[in-house]
Order: sequence, then C-alpha cells, then structure tokens
Amino acid sequence: MAIPYPHFIATEKAAMDAGLLHPSSPSVILTQDDLKKIAAYKAVEYVESGMVLGLGTGSTAKHAVDRIGELLRQGKLKDIVGIPTSTKTHEQALSLGIPLSDLDAHPAIDLAIDGADEVDPFLNLVKGRGGSLLREKMVEGACKKFIVIVDESKLVNYLGGSGLAMPVEVIKFCWRFTAARLQKLFEEAGCVARLRTFGEKEKEEPYVTDNGNFIVDLYFERSIGDLKAASDAILQLAGVVEHGMFLDMATTVIVAGELGLTVKNK
Amino acid sequence: MAIPYPHFIATEKAAMDAGLLHPSSPSVILTQDDLKKIAAYKAVEYVESGMVLGLGTGSTAKHAVDRIGELLRQGKLKDIVGIPTSTKTHEQALSLGIPLSDLDAHPAIDLAIDGADEVDPFLNLVKGRGGSLLREKMVEGACKKFIVIVDESKLVNYLGGSGLAMPVEVIKFCWRFTAARLQKLFEEAGCVARLRTFGEKEKEEPYVTDNGNFIVDLYFERSIGDLKAASDAILQLAGVVEHGMFLDMATTVIVAGELGLTVKNK
Repeated sequence: MAIPYPHFIATEKAAMDAGLLHPSSPSVILTQDDLKKIAAYKAVEYVESGMVLGLGTGSTAKHAVDRIGELLRQGKLKDIVGIPTSTKTHEQALSLGIPLSDLDAHPAIDLAIDGADEVDPFLNLVKGRGGSLLREKMVEGACKKFIVIVDESKLVNYLGGSGLAMPVEVIKFCWRFTAARLQKLFEEAGCVARLRTFGEKEKEEPYVTDNGNFIVDLYFERSIGDLKAASDAILQLAGVVEHGMFLDMATTVIVAGELGLTVKNK
Repeated sequence: MAIPYPHFIATEKAAMDAGLLHPSSPSVILTQDDLKKIAAYKAVEYVESGMVLGLGTGSTAKHAVDRIGELLRQGKLKDIVGIPTSTKTHEQALSLGIPLSDLDAHPAIDLAIDGADEVDPFLNLVKGRGGSLLREKMVEGACKKFIVIVDESKLVNYLGGSGLAMPVEVIKFCWRFTAARLQKLFEEAGCVARLRTFGEKEKEEPYVTDNGNFIVDLYFERSIGDLKAASDAILQLAGVVEHGMFLDMATTVIVAGELGLTVKNK
C-alpha cells in the first residue's frame, strides 16, 4: 500500500523517467510508492546486458525487478541472469520471464539492487523487516556492486534510530533464551526484543523465515554505539543465525525525496 | 562400539570407582570406552543435589547421563533438573527418569558435563562430530561450570590437529556457496570442506541437524592460527549458523589415559 506524503515532490526529470509525470503537468503530488519507483528506475540504469544480477525483496526492490523485466521484454537488455533473494522475488521474476539461477551456480554477482529499512550517514543499513535478511545478505555479500534504493524516510542518524525493528534471525530451539540474551546485550541502549508474529490476536503465530527460523525484532531507545562490535557480539550468540545490519556492504545508495534524487557513493 | 586400546591401563582407583576393576584383579586391559566411562564417573562426582545440569551428547557424555540416573535411583542425588543438548540425550534421560527442562525455563545452569572431539592445551575444544554442536553451545554457554570428559586420544596440540572434522552448521540454501567460502577462508591452512552425509553410496543423503540445517566438515592440513579471529570470520559468513570450536568455555577437562585420570582446570 502506498502511503501518501503530499509534501514530497520529486524533481521533474526523475519522475518523468519513471513515467509518473508528463510534460503537460510538470508538478504533481507523489506518494511514497512513487518515490520508491523513481529510485528503482534510476538504479536499473546501472544494469547492463550480460550481467549476473542480485534481485532484492520488498516494495522498493519489486519496482526494480518489474523494470528489469520490462527492459528485457523491450529487448533493451539481454543475457541477464537473476539471483533472487527470496522465494517471493523468485516467483515475481519467474512471472516476468527473467532467467534465474542461484549462488551455487553463480558465486560472483555483478550488481545487486535492493531496498533497505534504514540507511545511516556511512551507508550502513538495516534490512530484513520483510524477513529475507539472510538470503539478501548472502547474495549482496557476493556482489561487486550493491545499489540500495530508498525513499528519504529511510535515512537515519544511526542504525535503530527510526525506532522500528532491527531483525535477528534465530533458530526456533529455545528462542526465548536467545531473545533474552539479545535484549541483555543491548541493555544500555534500552533494547526490547520481541518475537515476530503474524495473524490476528487469537490466531497469532510466529513468523517463519524461508530457512525455517524465527525472527526476533530488536527495538532500541538509543544508539548501540560501535556497529562492528555489536555485529560480532550478536553473531557470537549461539542460537543466532544472522542479523539485519548490513555494514560496509552498500556501494551506492539512491535516495528519492522532496528535493529529487540523491546518489551517494561509498 | 568400544575400540580396544590394549596399551591403556587406567589407575586402579579410578577404574575401581567406575566398577571396571575389582581388588582381586588389580590390573586389566581397558578399552577406549572404559576410559570414557572412568572420566564420566569422575565428572559426576562434581554433581550436587539441587543442581540444574546440562546433559551432553555422544558416547562419553552418555556414560555421565547413565551415572546421574543411577545416583538418582539410588537416592544419592535429589532435585536434579537436566537440560539435554540433543533429542537423543533427551530420550536417554527420559528413559532414566531424570527430570528435564529447557533453557527457556532455566536460563542459568549450574554445571554441564559433555565430551569433546579435540582439546587443545588451553582447554579450547572442537565439538559436534555427533552433530549437536549448536544446542550444546547454547546450553554449555549458559553454565557456571562446564566439565569436559575425554580419553587421552582427544588431546591435540592445536584445534584441527587430529586431522578429523571441524564441523560448521550451515543453512541448506546455497550450501555449496557457503562451503566454498569456508574452504577459501582457510586456504592457507590447506582446508578442505565437505558436506556431511550418511547412508550407503547410492542412497547417500545430507545429514540434517536437529535444527533442520546441514553440516559442512572442515579438514585442515595445518593450524588455522588465531582461533578467536577464525571464529569471528566463520560467524561473519552469512549462511553459517554456528561452528564447532568451543573457545574459552570449558572450566575443567578430565582426561582418562594410560597414566590414569588427569584433571585440568582453567
């Protein structure tokens, strides 16, 4: 669902490129979803024929995958191999006729395009609110170039700063114990750990990842400080499979916002 | 199966304590399994009534669990709560009438007793050839005291030095990619990574852990050097769930060997 942000007006050129604006009506109100689409279309300009591409997951990445499918259909791109980061993206790409493979067959990826939940000033990310953090991290860790596409609501001063979840994938076995240890680890940052669930209250069930694990969402009141140290401390907990901090991985971040597109390079 | 090591003769007292030796025949040839039993019985001397106990997995730990069951039956131990480290140990303890719980209900454990595949001079361990490394690490990481019981064939100069496997639990998704990255990580140590399988050649299948993951076994030709750095590097690979190095966790190691029992404390 697109959430309207009536004060957001993208630059004319970027919006026109994404087919959202026509020369006859140069100024329209754009939704948050329009901004995501503008960023996604810009990112796909980096795609060249013959590339092995990491295909992200989520509402922003979906626009990029749609656009790649469109350019393939139009013959403007050729010989693309897509490596999807989730079963959902796998299905989307399949329906668009994008040739697919996996990391086992293509351990080196030219370029990945994906959204993010938070982006800090050093281009560190929080990802995985959509639940695919582990496969995303495997694919995007194998890329020469990793372009992140976001609307400007995703920019934060520090990771966790949005007040929304930083997800950690954990094994099901004694997940309460693991959740308690995670919360304890970040006690000083006012951390609260919660099992991710879905469904209505009475039929609420734990959310299960593509890999058969649970997600524990961490919420912070304050910055957790040294991110590298935090990452190692989380990974050292037996029971943790992976976390949603993507440190030093993005090479380019494309931000669509009120003042148009901003391209930040590492 | 007990493998006979005819040159191993345990000290008389320890063997008598484990019921393997009678005063009338003070010198007998002991098998490797006898040595495991001697070490296990010695470890159970540390158990006191009222303790929450981590129960290990494998041929050596099995003797300790049997002994705890025996002492409970005899009324020499009371109010024990056992936290099993595998479904296998869970079943064994259940059949012995040992009251059981889990880490969620008992996040602090007084004492754990378990075997190991390798023990280095600093009491660092390799564990998990039995496949339960993850649950073992969760339970044994939550212990005040962790007693490791081995026969002396498990002592190595450096981890990996036995030439046998150092197991890494990985998610199924693109495990070949993860195995290749693990092998690459320890290229300088002459590492070879192999998926653990079971069954006969034609019906060979991947071994699946209690948590639904695969095991990649690493074999080294030379020492991997800094163990802490190696541990962090393995855990930083997305796709890795846990590894079988237990660093700085054992508080006591009981070694049963030719010259009797040796108790090494941290």
